Amino acid sequence: MTDVVIAGIGQTEVGEHWELSLRDLAFAAIQDAIRDAGGLKPQSLFVGNMLAPNLSRQAHVGALLADFAGLNGIEAVTVEAAGASGGAALRQGYLAVASGFVDVALVVGVEKFTDKVGAAVDEALATQSDSDFEAVQGMTPAAQAALLMKRYMHEYEVPKDGFAGFALTAHENGARNKHAMFRKAIKPEVYAKAEMISDPLNMFDMAPNADGAAALVLTRRELLPSSFTNPLVKIAGSGASSDTLALHDRKDMLYFDTAQLSAGKAIKQVGLTLDGIDFFEYHDTFSIYAAMQLEAVGFAIKGKGWRLAEDGEISRTGKIPCATMGGMKARGFPGGGAGVYQAVEAAIQLRGQAEANQVKDAKFGLIQSLGGPASTAVSHILQRLD
Amino acid sequence: MTDVVIAGIGQTEVGEHWELSLRDLAFAAIQDAIRDAGGLKPQSLFVGNMLAPNLSRQAHVGALLADFAGLNGIEAVTVEAAGASGGAALRQGYLAVASGFVDVALVVGVEKFTDKVGAAVDEALATQSDSDFEAVQGMTPAAQAALLMKRYMHEYEVPKDGFAGFALTAHENGARNKHAMFRKAIKPEVYAKAEMISDPLNMFDMAPNADGAAALVLTRRELLPSSFTNPLVKIAGSGASSDTLALHDRKDMLYFDTAQLSAGKAIKQVGLTLDGIDFFEYHDTFSIYAAMQLEAVGFAIKGKGWRLAEDGEISRTGKIPCATMGGMKARGFPGGGAGVYQAVEAAIQLRGQAEANQVKDAKFGLIQSLGGPASTAVSHILQRLD
Repeated sequence: MTDVVIAGIGQTEVGEHWELSLRDLAFAAIQDAIRDAGGLKPQSLFVGNMLAPNLSRQAHVGALLADFAGLNGIEAVTVEAAGASGGAALRQGYLAVASGFVDVALVVGVEKFTDKVGAAVDEALATQSDSDFEAVQGMTPAAQAALLMKRYMHEYEVPKDGFAGFALTAHENGARNKHAMFRKAIKPEVYAKAEMISDPLNMFDMAPNADGAAALVLTRRELLPSSFTNPLVKIAGSGASSDTLALHDRKDMLYFDTAQLSAGKAIKQVGLTLDGIDFFEYHDTFSIYAAMQLEAVGFAIKGKGWRLAEDGEISRTGKIPCATMGGMKARGFPGGGAGVYQAVEAAIQLRGQAEANQVKDAKFGLIQSLGGPASTAVSHILQRLD
Repeated sequence: MTDVVIAGIGQTEVGEHWELSLRDLAFAAIQDAIRDAGGLKPQSLFVGNMLAPNLSRQAHVGALLADFAGLNGIEAVTVEAAGASGGAALRQGYLAVASGFVDVALVVGVEKFTDKVGAAVDEALATQSDSDFEAVQGMTPAAQAALLMKRYMHEYEVPKDGFAGFALTAHENGARNKHAMFRKAIKPEVYAKAEMISDPLNMFDMAPNADGAAALVLTRRELLPSSFTNPLVKIAGSGASSDTLALHDRKDMLYFDTAQLSAGKAIKQVGLTLDGIDFFEYHDTFSIYAAMQLEAVGFAIKGKGWRLAEDGEISRTGKIPCATMGGMKARGFPGGGAGVYQAVEAAIQLRGQAEANQVKDAKFGLIQSLGGPASTAVSHILQRLD
């Protein structure tokens, strides 16, 4: 099979963009990605977005963005799987190009939180949960993650501040990423004293909801123009999986089946072992999610994911570097756009353009996008082509 | 390339299902489709849905439905392009199976309007329009269609009741479809006296919003079990296109570019001419849309689409039979699910199982799903395999 490559990447700074609309944000990222791809013209647009129908009263975002970006006439759809929307959009773009039906696909992840404030945002985010059995009880994603974290800490005897390593690593890396929302390293004392959101989950165990857009131009290797000079990054593996929407319906709520299944599919497609993966962009909207993804993918045994963070093994020079550009925690969490940010950041690493955050000799990166507590997981392996 | 075939179909009756939830409706259709496919097990689920995030406070519908249908672990996403969501979900399912990445895909179109009533429904439907420039003015899709219809009638000198043929044909066919919402033929006098919704658009120029779910099981021909006995229907062509979201941004608002472009792609893939198409399932949420689709696809010249209806040429025995099972107008309009209903109905025709509504010797059917005033159009050609 032919190689599907990332021809272009683009991203906006993540943050509170009060003055920019959903379409403005997406356009900025699209423009950068198409320019980076040497002007390749996309025939299809796959948008990863979760919240626009609620927060911006805007569905039909595919046609909206194609129109606003001057790409009139192209195919355009939104792909939605809650927080995994970006990863799911990337996968649809990948399938379209790999199948030969589409030569050049544009994948955009975008979220505009600041069209609303307060309870409206919590209510919109809660639509990722089982509406009739979870959200209706008033449970927000953060409250649910706190319950999960509490259970995990009890089962595995995690000490207070046992999850600190996730935030420390994220902020250390985010400090050197000019697109990150928080560009300041934090000390263990800051984590220890952080305000509680929902016991035991504190302010640093949770990623900030933020506006942002990221974009990718995908094509088949042989369609790249001869003038193309970017280092080549290939989408080498892709996998997606779903689990019960409601956390209480799982046999073992302390294991993210979908994180295992989807990563397993992607890794198998490449013919890799875990040792071959040079870095892992997990979906650390909550530190407990990061710990459980490390376990499900196989980087740690069950109940020991947090130890990798505590022991410094997820830092840039550790055993498995994670959140290398700050992750959801420090780069910020642009909702349904987050999975596309992961892909853009992984491409930067694999191009060798991550500067102070560069993972040495990175050849294979795993990115994983979650919807809810891994009710959906979409995993991709990106590979540097020499 | 291998043939992608429809192995199974399922649908619920369209109507006001006050007692059933979004997941109940979808499950009924999924169960029927999988049974009809002889128990083939899907690996991927593509859901066409538009309004659940607003009307049911439920995003993440892919994982929800996979879970509720007992398909735990499979890939599951929602594909959204307003009213064209169903067609867009079918296209993603088709690409996934055609590419070889997925062996068996389940495509479900579902909408549950009756979780809300009144203005909330109009507001949700208006998210298909350009939120910042159209919906914000208070314009609903029906009001917009009325303006379009008025302009069309003026430009082309259409007499009062010139659009009656669309409703008459739809109701005649719907009367014989046990899944249709309205199963009663109407007389010209009924159309002539119908209550005005937004002048000149009357109650019979507009399809009823309704609950319903339809499902398809897709696979590659060689993967069908030897026990499989259903007549074979292939997805022979697929095309999608987008246009400006706002109607006022078009050079010529009286021509549906996307209807032409997407149908053209699908027809070209098959290597057909228009003469080879035996019936056309258009997206008649408004009679003006039906007229303009007939023109854009090429069955009538510009300004004369309404004449096909008036002259009886869209009836079962006419030149180009349309809305053969009642269309949106009489079968009912299940929002983002509508495009999957079209595919199910076309498959019934091509299997030769349409009974009193059977189009004689039907071999090729064109279906077209629209989002907004053809801001998105997704077209497929379905083909009977002998």
